[in-house]
Amino acid sequence: MTHNQMFQYSLALGLMDGVADKGLPISEFLKHGDHGLGTFRFMNGEMIVLDGKAYQMLSDGSIVDLDSNGDAIHPFAQITRFKPEVITKAIVPSKEELNGIVTNLVPGSKNHLLAMRLDGVFESVTVRTAAGQTEPHQGLLEIGKNQVSFTFENVRGTLVGFRQPHYLQGIGVHGDHLHFITDDKKRGGHVLALESDGEVEVKAAQMYTMTLELPKGDQDFDKADLLGAHEDLKTVEG
Amino acid sequence: MTHNQMFQYSLALGLMDGVADKGLPISEFLKHGDHGLGTFRFMNGEMIVLDGKAYQMLSDGSIVDLDSNGDAIHPFAQITRFKPEVITKAIVPSKEELNGIVTNLVPGSKNHLLAMRLDGVFESVTVRTAAGQTEPHQGLLEIGKNQVSFTFENVRGTLVGFRQPHYLQGIGVHGDHLHFITDDKKRGGHVLALESDGEVEVKAAQMYTMTLELPKGDQDFDKADLLGAHEDLKTVEG
Repeated sequence: MTHNQMFQYSLALGLMDGVADKGLPISEFLKHGDHGLGTFRFMNGEMIVLDGKAYQMLSDGSIVDLDSNGDAIHPFAQITRFKPEVITKAIVPSKEELNGIVTNLVPGSKNHLLAMRLDGVFESVTVRTAAGQTEPHQGLLEIGKNQVSFTFENVRGTLVGFRQPHYLQGIGVHGDHLHFITDDKKRGGHVLALESDGEVEVKAAQMYTMTLELPKGDQDFDKADLLGAHEDLKTVEG
Repeated sequence: MTHNQMFQYSLALGLMDGVADKGLPISEFLKHGDHGLGTFRFMNGEMIVLDGKAYQMLSDGSIVDLDSNGDAIHPFAQITRFKPEVITKAIVPSKEELNGIVTNLVPGSKNHLLAMRLDGVFESVTVRTAAGQTEPHQGLLEIGKNQVSFTFENVRGTLVGFRQPHYLQGIGVHGDHLHFITDDKKRGGHVLALESDGEVEVKAAQMYTMTLELPKGDQDFDKADLLGAHEDLKTVEG
């Protein structure tokens, strides 16, 4: 299978509109790669795919080791078969500075999709974990109000994710969208902030092909507005 | 090859920013389908792919029958292997009313991509044909000021194109984006307006998968803003 091509199921705008009842089965999803992220039915937790293995990170702080042929479904998910093209060691003082580090690492990539991965010991990583819909069709913005945040200190782990250019906002999430999992696979979530005092390993690859699969037979998706303001998406995923 | 999957090269936003120096060779493009549209280097004319055959419709009113292994390149293009799922005969009083006709034909498709085709005798079809950049990096909005319009009356021909949902505006063009070619393959262009007094054949198919290929090694694309306002794109392509 070809490396560094993005496969995506559905839209970030779908989550904004609360479209989270149906989704792509995990077994179908994992055919498209080994490095990814996404969410679950009713937006219950955060998904990370690390080295081909998928995990569900829940708001109570627990992690479920997912059966790749199990019944998990993903109303939104992104994955690639990741083959790093650039690898460096860097001190990453913040998520914002990570942006500049990766930009220098992959010059000319501002209008391109990147797959990204960081490995090492982090001074701190702050994550949020969606607690899921408390009523049908609840949108991501509303869910975000009940999200749970954790800050892990002096933690060894991995960040997996993607950089998406501005024109993909709504389809995906503009900017660096990363999920984190600890080395012992016991904690993790959607990355809000990070800090490394020592060097961590930073890997990236540019992706020139993106395949978007849209929901089939999902009436919630078919009826949704899917017009969500860029600013709202930035509030919850930025 | 799978039917009714969209393949797209580059972005409509690229054209807005005048990115039109490089592109996908026609031989590569035609591997992805038999029904499509797009533009050419320097936005010189309009492209239509009808039953697997590509034509370049120029602003002087002439049409070039393209060699599928020739040197034409496409800075923006969309194609599918079209297999109609719904076929009807309808009177199409206007482009606006075509929208409602197709919506009724494919219920629940408002958030989906459609491939569309119309065949028959039209009371009138008004097209525009881009005359191309007169200086490097000239954007589509500027080029649009010099575009040439033609109205064909009582003309037999075919409209080929796609309906794209709002969330794809910028990636492609929101709404019904159609190119026209006469039955004798002598005239055509980008459809601005149409009218049929008698019934014409309307065919459509929903597309659940879209593959977007981004330009590789195209510095104009890499440096472009690609932030173009939705309204600007509507002005030139709506």
